[in-house]
Amino acid sequence: MERKIPYKIYLSESEMPKYWYNLRADMVNKPAPLLDPETKKPLSAKELSKVFCDELVKQELDETTPYFEIPEEIRDFYKMYRPSPLIRAYCLEEKLQTPAKIYYKFEGNNTSGSHKLNSAIAQAYYAKKQGLKGVTTETGAGQWGTALSMACAYFGLDCKVFMVKCSYEQKPFRREVMRTYGASVTPSPSSLTKVGQKILELHPGTTGSLGCAISEAVETATNLNGYRYVLGSVLNQVTLHQSVIGLETKTALEKYGEKADIIIGCAGGGSNLGGLIAPFMGEKIKGEKDYRFIAVEPSSCPSLTRGKYAYDYCDTGMICPLTKMYTLGSGYIPAATHAGGLRYHGMNSVVSQLYADGLMEAVSVKQTEVFEAAEYFARIEGILPAPESSHAIKVAIDEALKCKESGESKTIVFGLTGTGYFDMYAYEKFHDGKMDDYIPTDAEIENALSKLPNV
Amino acid sequence: MERKIPYKIYLSESEMPKYWYNLRADMVNKPAPLLDPETKKPLSAKELSKVFCDELVKQELDETTPYFEIPEEIRDFYKMYRPSPLIRAYCLEEKLQTPAKIYYKFEGNNTSGSHKLNSAIAQAYYAKKQGLKGVTTETGAGQWGTALSMACAYFGLDCKVFMVKCSYEQKPFRREVMRTYGASVTPSPSSLTKVGQKILELHPGTTGSLGCAISEAVETATNLNGYRYVLGSVLNQVTLHQSVIGLETKTALEKYGEKADIIIGCAGGGSNLGGLIAPFMGEKIKGEKDYRFIAVEPSSCPSLTRGKYAYDYCDTGMICPLTKMYTLGSGYIPAATHAGGLRYHGMNSVVSQLYADGLMEAVSVKQTEVFEAAEYFARIEGILPAPESSHAIKVAIDEALKCKESGESKTIVFGLTGTGYFDMYAYEKFHDGKMDDYIPTDAEIENALSKLPNV
Repeated sequence: MERKIPYKIYLSESEMPKYWYNLRADMVNKPAPLLDPETKKPLSAKELSKVFCDELVKQELDETTPYFEIPEEIRDFYKMYRPSPLIRAYCLEEKLQTPAKIYYKFEGNNTSGSHKLNSAIAQAYYAKKQGLKGVTTETGAGQWGTALSMACAYFGLDCKVFMVKCSYEQKPFRREVMRTYGASVTPSPSSLTKVGQKILELHPGTTGSLGCAISEAVETATNLNGYRYVLGSVLNQVTLHQSVIGLETKTALEKYGEKADIIIGCAGGGSNLGGLIAPFMGEKIKGEKDYRFIAVEPSSCPSLTRGKYAYDYCDTGMICPLTKMYTLGSGYIPAATHAGGLRYHGMNSVVSQLYADGLMEAVSVKQTEVFEAAEYFARIEGILPAPESSHAIKVAIDEALKCKESGESKTIVFGLTGTGYFDMYAYEKFHDGKMDDYIPTDAEIENALSKLPNV
Repeated sequence: MERKIPYKIYLSESEMPKYWYNLRADMVNKPAPLLDPETKKPLSAKELSKVFCDELVKQELDETTPYFEIPEEIRDFYKMYRPSPLIRAYCLEEKLQTPAKIYYKFEGNNTSGSHKLNSAIAQAYYAKKQGLKGVTTETGAGQWGTALSMACAYFGLDCKVFMVKCSYEQKPFRREVMRTYGASVTPSPSSLTKVGQKILELHPGTTGSLGCAISEAVETATNLNGYRYVLGSVLNQVTLHQSVIGLETKTALEKYGEKADIIIGCAGGGSNLGGLIAPFMGEKIKGEKDYRFIAVEPSSCPSLTRGKYAYDYCDTGMICPLTKMYTLGSGYIPAATHAGGLRYHGMNSVVSQLYADGLMEAVSVKQTEVFEAAEYFARIEGILPAPESSHAIKVAIDEALKCKESGESKTIVFGLTGTGYFDMYAYEKFHDGKMDDYIPTDAEIENALSKLPNV
């Protein structure tokens, strides 16, 4: 059947965004500033630039400039895998027998397998422009480390990745992809850093954590000449770069005369969600158009739905800036049985402020229902989704089924952030019936929240 | 920089082929007919239809119909991941400092990760149309099994995959993808078939072979009501379906006023190569345009460059039809150190005839140079290629470097058949310096060829 709207909407290169959109410029209540973890005073650009690249510090702190031009070198790189397709889920709609129209923005069609590359290439570019030798970072599941390795290979930068030890051992193939792109990958905690040595001394058998890997990467960057630390989520510079997702989505919908009613994104640190919703949220804040936004988080790491909006540490070593955000406490670690990513204790400060202001909703979902949705989707739409992305799939299906009941023909848009090729271990557990759901008790969350810094 | 030709050329849905092209209709010397392995007489459609679906038997035997309409249901499925992009390798050209223009047709942007899906969906469609319950097949590296699982899930067919045992054990994640799509996956040899039982009795510790898995799949299909056997390469029906690759490539090049000079494809059973070159070869045969075609095979399995053009068995159990093809003998098994796929002993009969007629060239390449090219390409073009596809990359780079020497601005087109996400074990061996090259001795090849059937 020939349809007016194709399965896959690909914008042309000339329709690609030339600017990132900085939602903060249009927000009425701005997110709270970053604080020095020792003095509890707002951090200056100068202080931040010991850790981050100069240009990225500017982007991090800028609350007034609505648009940042995307440098030509980055746009050239984007053209290697962007514009990403906006896909009309005709097959899913038919299977669900829903009057809803479902679209998803698919960010998995690049070798890193996720949207992380959108910010990785920007951060690598600014590091190169500053004349740096290389960058350091941490990676948990491995998507960010892979993306950064690709970006560094492109610009000829050295890339040192601290990979959470259990992930390093369970996902040797993720590690090999990074090595293919020339990165050095070290299991964390390691004996290469003071913070790593200390943790190994205190907990000889530890399999590591994201917070510890962050501390190791920051320490390494600050001790090496010509290195800076880069981060794949949580920061405002990251959601700025990720606005390319939302901008393309908006252009593609407008091209076909469609208007989204509900926009859904999975939420870990907020990088994809913040980028996807940015231009739509801008319209909502300015009163131009109305949308429902839904953040979807795992019930085992429910920072928006059960966390507290407060200043907290970003890392275990407590050396990173304090951020005001929805948090479960920097000591909160999701249960070991949690397989599907999105395990950060906090949330991007822009997303946090929007949620605090009632401009968006949040729901939490259990991991077995997420994998059920993932497998269902894979069989119908032909894409094997990452567990993270499948949180959004689950809620998009739920909303489409509500439309079926009510008979409403709403337009639902969700972010399909990546592919699940490196998550087959989790799929295997699901197939073998060995996956369970963990929901933290109130006491557990209260305990973790009791250690928030006094600000 | 804004360029006249974009990085990625995506045809619109309306520009997608509506017909597959049957190159045999335009060939002067037709490929030799399939023979019954017992009587050595040409096989009738009736005999073949005990093993294959009726419609596929027709396609297999038809030497006169130049175009087969692609059924609407298949075109609808194709739209979920096609048209695939034809990518202009600007970054690679710049890195090589070559005046050559390099294009590649990228077939890896679907969940099965390779071009195999183009034929899998067609074969599943005809099985469904015939009212069958399911299909059986074998898989080695796993690309074909994955593609068939996806196709069967889409049409609600049962799918039984016999996976070569060593691959089943080394690639558990490939297996999980197939399970995600609802296929049952059995390590071969198994105790489920007579041929499997016999092999297990004779060789208790065997890790299996492709020829054995084929025999098991054929036996299972012929013993079950409502099942047929399907195959992902070698057959003419497969290259017919894969002509969609060449047809899209040709349309995309013509749209931008480009004419290929050299067309390069990797060659295992010939499914990708046959499909990629088909419409261009048709023009060459008819004297309309001239092209150089280069088939690239591994030096450890050099059927075109060192094999014999003769009738041979397709499987170890010798129950499949005899095919006239370039072969190393059905008993030939590439060295265990060979990591990169393309390990079939024979070659599609159309490709074989074209090569015998001097219409195309063939070269063999060593696996370490293939992985060097793969890593080089990944870092520059951002796509992590499958080892199979990387054979074509290696020779495309070689040809581009020849242009650099001669100063000629040739247009080189190659097929990038898939991604390497499930081949990181081989990449790891390469990174760790544990990969070596194996080139069979003349005596080894003569020995395997001495067991050709007497036709």
